[in-house]
Amino acid sequence: MNRPQTVEKMIDIVKKLPGVGPKMAERLCYHILKMSDSEAKSFMDAIQNARQKVKVCSVCYNLSESDPCPICSDNTRNKELLCVVESPQDLIAVSKVKNEDYNGLYFVLGGALSPLDAIGPKDIRINQLITRLKQDDIKEVILATDMDSKGETTAVYLAQLIKPLGIKVSRLGYGMPVGGDIEYADEVTISKAIAGRKEM
Amino acid sequence: MNRPQTVEKMIDIVKKLPGVGPKMAERLCYHILKMSDSEAKSFMDAIQNARQKVKVCSVCYNLSESDPCPICSDNTRNKELLCVVESPQDLIAVSKVKNEDYNGLYFVLGGALSPLDAIGPKDIRINQLITRLKQDDIKEVILATDMDSKGETTAVYLAQLIKPLGIKVSRLGYGMPVGGDIEYADEVTISKAIAGRKEM
Repeated sequence: MNRPQTVEKMIDIVKKLPGVGPKMAERLCYHILKMSDSEAKSFMDAIQNARQKVKVCSVCYNLSESDPCPICSDNTRNKELLCVVESPQDLIAVSKVKNEDYNGLYFVLGGALSPLDAIGPKDIRINQLITRLKQDDIKEVILATDMDSKGETTAVYLAQLIKPLGIKVSRLGYGMPVGGDIEYADEVTISKAIAGRKEM
Repeated sequence: MNRPQTVEKMIDIVKKLPGVGPKMAERLCYHILKMSDSEAKSFMDAIQNARQKVKVCSVCYNLSESDPCPICSDNTRNKELLCVVESPQDLIAVSKVKNEDYNGLYFVLGGALSPLDAIGPKDIRINQLITRLKQDDIKEVILATDMDSKGETTAVYLAQLIKPLGIKVSRLGYGMPVGGDIEYADEVTISKAIAGRKEM
């Protein structure tokens, strides 16, 4: 006994989504098949609407319904500060900090350097970043790529390219996360937190 | 900074899928947004196609492109045996056993009794099952609802209804799963496996 062919095909396609295994795909598909027509319509419409309306901002490469995006066209922002992130999701995370903590602009690289995955400097937006830095009046670039080996490699690579332009380059500080449990912190993080200790 | 409204809406809807949390929904949505037009088309088409073509079999309530489904219209099957399952997914799992192990028919309840979730006998296809048992020439019903408390409750309830019809009722046997690790088995399963031990 096999599943109906259309269901098999649906599962095969849903299985390709990130983080979705065969069992999860099956569960999602049966759920979608059981939806009422109006539920299914809202579901499909939400996806199609977002795909139609959302564009990439030509300045920072964030996803947005307008171009330039609301951040790039916000004149109250500090245009001398640029925060470089890997993805639009990372941008959202950084943009949740208070205005007094960061109120500059952003740039989305679209990934991180990863020789093992054959992702080199040409596969992410490094040229576009350098072009922007040469055109705009940016005084400091904050590298907010992930704190893992790919993000670190990318940050080191970018710093080497940006410093010669006479722009200050900084990296997010290492340390214990807020609310973090010392018992479960890894020793490298603890070392970095000791090195970055603050007098009370 | 908020996400574009259409993306927020898409995430809200995807978040309602079973087993999908807010972070996972975000990841899936950004993945779908990044798909090429042709990828997105296959994705949407697969869902719409399946939803259009797949119906519920009027005999066993399995999902199928034809009615009755290929299992119900298969004349080589033993029509005196009926296996009752909770969902179409469970039916697929049971139907993977060899023909000599099970070659009877099926019935999909569409859930299990669960007083805590306010799912009573009228919310699943118990009436339809009893009607079918009265019409068809079924000699034995195998209750293959889940082995958890809901499935167990449902099986006990069904057994009480079916036995008076003069039909043999059985339940899947408890024991150690094949390939199971004794060290990690719970004590109830081990007790059941000891009670159901076989001479070698």
